[in-house]
Order: sequence, then C-alpha cells, then structure tokens
Amino acid sequence: MIIPVILSGGSGTRLWPLSRRATPKQFRSLVGTQTMIQDTAARLATLGNVGEPLVVCGAGHAARVQKQLAAIGVTPTILIEPSAKNTAPAVAAACLAAIDRHPDSMVVVLPSDHVIEDVAEFARLVDLAVTTARDGYLTTFGVVPTFPATGYGYICPGDSLSGEASAIAAFVEKPDEETALEYVASGYLWNAGMFVFRATDFLAELQTQDPAMHAAVVGAYPSSPDEGGTVHLAEEGWNTIEPRSIDYAVMEPTKRGAVLPLACGWSDVGSWATLYDLGTKDDAGNVVQGNVFLSDATNVYVRSESKPVVVVGVEDLIVVEMEDVVLVMHQRAAEDVKALTEQLPDELT
Amino acid sequence: MIIPVILSGGSGTRLWPLSRRATPKQFRSLVGTQTMIQDTAARLATLGNVGEPLVVCGAGHAARVQKQLAAIGVTPTILIEPSAKNTAPAVAAACLAAIDRHPDSMVVVLPSDHVIEDVAEFARLVDLAVTTARDGYLTTFGVVPTFPATGYGYICPGDSLSGEASAIAAFVEKPDEETALEYVASGYLWNAGMFVFRATDFLAELQTQDPAMHAAVVGAYPSSPDEGGTVHLAEEGWNTIEPRSIDYAVMEPTKRGAVLPLACGWSDVGSWATLYDLGTKDDAGNVVQGNVFLSDATNVYVRSESKPVVVVGVEDLIVVEMEDVVLVMHQRAAEDVKALTEQLPDELT
Repeated sequence: MIIPVILSGGSGTRLWPLSRRATPKQFRSLVGTQTMIQDTAARLATLGNVGEPLVVCGAGHAARVQKQLAAIGVTPTILIEPSAKNTAPAVAAACLAAIDRHPDSMVVVLPSDHVIEDVAEFARLVDLAVTTARDGYLTTFGVVPTFPATGYGYICPGDSLSGEASAIAAFVEKPDEETALEYVASGYLWNAGMFVFRATDFLAELQTQDPAMHAAVVGAYPSSPDEGGTVHLAEEGWNTIEPRSIDYAVMEPTKRGAVLPLACGWSDVGSWATLYDLGTKDDAGNVVQGNVFLSDATNVYVRSESKPVVVVGVEDLIVVEMEDVVLVMHQRAAEDVKALTEQLPDELT
Repeated sequence: MIIPVILSGGSGTRLWPLSRRATPKQFRSLVGTQTMIQDTAARLATLGNVGEPLVVCGAGHAARVQKQLAAIGVTPTILIEPSAKNTAPAVAAACLAAIDRHPDSMVVVLPSDHVIEDVAEFARLVDLAVTTARDGYLTTFGVVPTFPATGYGYICPGDSLSGEASAIAAFVEKPDEETALEYVASGYLWNAGMFVFRATDFLAELQTQDPAMHAAVVGAYPSSPDEGGTVHLAEEGWNTIEPRSIDYAVMEPTKRGAVLPLACGWSDVGSWATLYDLGTKDDAGNVVQGNVFLSDATNVYVRSESKPVVVVGVEDLIVVEMEDVVLVMHQRAAEDVKALTEQLPDELT
C-alpha cells in the first residue's frame, strides 16, 4: 500500500502577505482554484493502491488541513507536531503511522506547498520510484533544472541503478551563480524534498544514522490515535529532538539512496517572482488575479483579494492586496520579502 | 460687512480615488488635519468684520458642508444649486444672499478646494482687495507663478491702479509650455478663481454683460430661505441658465476689473503629483500619510486610509489605499487620472 505523507510545517515567508504564520501558503490558492495542499493531495489520487494521506503539521493548522482536504473528499490522518523539528522527525513519525496502517507500507513524502504542472508525468515517476523503493532504495526525485537556480540545493547523480534511477553521488548546498552554471552543465538535479521509500526501510536507516532521533520519535509516538484519526505526538519526548532535515539525517549518509530525474513543471513557488513566472500573462506580460484594472502596465503581477486594485503606468511591479495589508514591491525585491517581514509588526506577519 | 462665498461645486476628479463624486476633495483632509473646506472657512476667520460664509453646492453635498463647518464652529448659509452651472450663476446667487444679509456686503469668493500656506499674507491681500473693491473694482487675485504651469489660465496685468493693484489687460487660456515660459517672463499671473467685490457691483456688471443670466438667477432666488439657513435655488428657473464661468461672463468683459498679485504658497492641489510636491518629504524624498512602511523607496507618495501599506524597492510611485479601492500609479501618469476614472466602473468613481 502506498501512503502519501504530506509535510505541512512550512511557513512560506517569502510569499508574505499571502502566506502568513497563521495561514501559510499551502492553505492558499496560488495558481489554480484549489489550495496548494488540496492540489498536493489530489495529485496522488489518480495512482492505484494509494491510501488516505498522512499530514504532519503544527497544532494550529490541523483544523484547516482537515477542512481543506475534506472539501475535496480526502480524509487524512493528521500527525500533530508539538514543535517544528525540521523534516526528519516528521517523516519518521509518519513512517510509524504508515506501519500502523500496514506493515509493508510504501510512503511518498511530499511538501504541501509545491506546484507540479504535468501531473501525469509526476504520476509516472512516482510509479517508477515505488518500483525502485521496492528494491530497498531510499528514493528521491531530482528535478531537472530549467535554469541555474541559486535558491535550491542540488543532487549529483552517481552510477546508474536500473531504468531511470541512479545512485546518489552527493547532496550539495545552494550554490553561487557560477557554481550553479557548472552544476546544471554537469547534470546535477534540484533537491526538491520529495521521497519514496518503504516506511520500515527509512526507520531502519534512521536508527542506524541517528539512533537518538529514532528513539525520541518512537518514544513520542502514541500507542493509539485520538478519535477522528488525529495523532498527537507527545510533547515531552518530541521537544527533546534536535531538528534535522531528512537530507542531513538520512539521505546524505545512507548507502541506499537513489535519485530519479523529474521533469514535470515543478516549482516550490518560493517567491512572488516565481508566482509571476508561473502565471498566465497578457500581451504586455502582466499577470492578474482578482478584481484588477490595468492601464499602461507592463510585466506586473497584481493580486486583489478583497477590493479593486487599479494599476497605471508602471512596470516590473508586484502588488498584493490582502484584507488587512497591501504590498507594493519591485520584482527585483522579491527575494527580500523574508527579511522584510522580520521588520514588520507581529500582527502583520 | 465682508461675506466669504465658498464655491463647493467641484469634483476634483484628478485626485481619484481620494476625491469621488460623492465626496470630492474639498471634504477630505489632503495636507493637514482639517478638510479643505474647513481650511477655506477657517482662513478668513481671522479677518475683522467677516460674517458667516455662504457656501454654494449641490444638494448631495449640503449635509456634509453643514457638518464639516459646524465641527469648526462655523454656521454657513448653504445655497443649493439644482444643477451645476459653472461659477458665474453660483456667484450671482451668493451675491443676492449677501445683499439679503446687508445691502453693502463685500464678498470674497473662494474655491473650497485650494491650499494656501501663508495665511497671514493671504489675509493681508484680502484686506487690500477689499480696499480696492470699495472703489468699485471687481478684484481678482493673480497668483505669482512659481513655475511655467500649463494647467492654469493666466492674467496679464495692465496699468497700475493704486497700491499693489493693477487693471486687467487680458485673461488668457491655459498655454503650451513655450507660451507658459513667455507668460511667466512677462509677469503674467495665474488665474486662481478668487475674487473680491461689492455684491451689488458684481450683479450690476452681470446685468450689463449677461442680462439673461442675471434675470434667471434673480428669478431662481427664493423670496425667503428655508429653516436652518439653507437657500434652495428654484429648479425651474435655474435649469434654464447657460453655464458660464465668472471669468467669461463678467471678469473678461468688464472695464472695472482689477488684479492683485498674490504670493502665499497657493495650490489648487490639482493632481497627485501636486499633493506629493506639497508634502513633507523624508531624506529619500518620500511623502507618507497613514500606516505606511517603506523599505528602499525613493520619491514615492503613499497614503493609507484603511489598512497598512508596505512599499519596497520602488521609486516615483503614487500609492493610494482607500477603504474600497487601491491605486498604484507612476508619478508621470498623475495627469491621466481624470481620463482613467472615465474607464472605471461607476461604483468606483
């Protein structure tokens, strides 16, 4: 049985003011009409032998996850993290829950806030990854770069394994521009944080690589879920865990890693500039959403959530109107939003 | 007795969205804390022997005039125009009302939506104008140009009369840029639509120059005001009047015109660019009003009326946030706002 594990702990700060601490971007509709977490759950529904998803999130977001997934007919099990501990503990807890469902569960770990345009190709690759994982590999997707990004880590593929899968030669950090060009020329892939493995394989590897974390997660995992399928991880045990990503804790040290190149129009929608890139443009390169009136505007992204926005005689701007705040920003400042939010009053972030 | 006549029929379209059909700019606080019509009324309160003002406006604005002036302790008589007929009929009706108060009333005609920075100098000139008008002159102020404006008509002063006053050689239309430079070099003055004359002198001259208008206004003027000091001009008579400005109907043809140069920081606040010019600037040339957060912004005007506005990495922008709409515009588009509003849905204008 394949069990989707949806990680919904991200904050999406660089998409402020659409993405907030209380309502991160996975709960918003960024590109289509569904929210990102709805898209994420729906994307796997077409695969065969897939169970209801496990969603890992903070207590403050559980009700929203439940509600948004119910709206598309999905009934998740929600694992509530008492505190954010990065991805490795979250995935480990999800693996325990997957094993509760079925001892031989195969998990597909997906961030809740990414966009995938070619869902059929994605589904094909998930099938391949499941086949690879059945051989005991901890499998990850490496997104085929479409430009020399400096905002992602890269995966250097190693020896060919079988079919389209390769061993993993190395994970490397976010590069500078020159290095990024080299990486792309050398066939490196973007590390997109998506994984497929047997739940027991992951837990075994975690026990080998980070036995303390493994023990702490097992200790924090309750003997039985609450009513309604919610799993509250025990605060006392959980809070002792040292936060680590799945990459650092497991994927880098393991000898059983595999990577599959994925070319499916993937984006983490990491900034307003990315959202502009993803949007449908008019003849002047403008992307609008909501009640927007443009006059003599070029290459602007304008989003109106609560009232009409009129934009005149400008170019390369991002304008985001929300019920409680308005952002007007040059496109080239899009990467500075995270730093910006740290200067804003708490009630706005 | 000096009686201020405040003309409040303007729509201030170029300051949309602050200025609306329902709430034109004279009812808004643009620069200071008082609204423009409050500033206009307060400006004359320091003069001696000044009566309560007469305000001419449309029916839809009467309650607001009453309320805003009551808030600063002023009790106007409000003359309600059944329809807008430009300035000459409005001033004529006000002169009739002034004569009702006192047969020898001197009227000071002021638009309700202009800014005057040096109120003491303005008061000194009003005193001079009253002296000139006592000699039977229809006196106007000519604003000493501070730049070669193409947005105003000009007054060419003629022979010196007495003191600072001159006869009027000619009124000229809004010039092109080259002509504006010549006008400024030749000592022409801006026609700012402010006048001082004896009410009976104005009406006598109107009777000479445009007897039909004179008769129609006299016919529309009621025999007695309503309760509460409101004067409803009779719709039937008023609506037959052909609209004409006081300049065309009286000031240009009269042989008894006089002009006094006025240098008092005058502005008609005709556009957002003007409002930016009038504002107090920070070191980067930014003007903000309301709850505004700037980061790396230069020469922007940002006004927040209902919720925080965050502006990042931009220059030469005008951002106006109102309860029901947001405008984001390049400074160089400021003169196009009137044309813009004609393309917008009615409910926004």
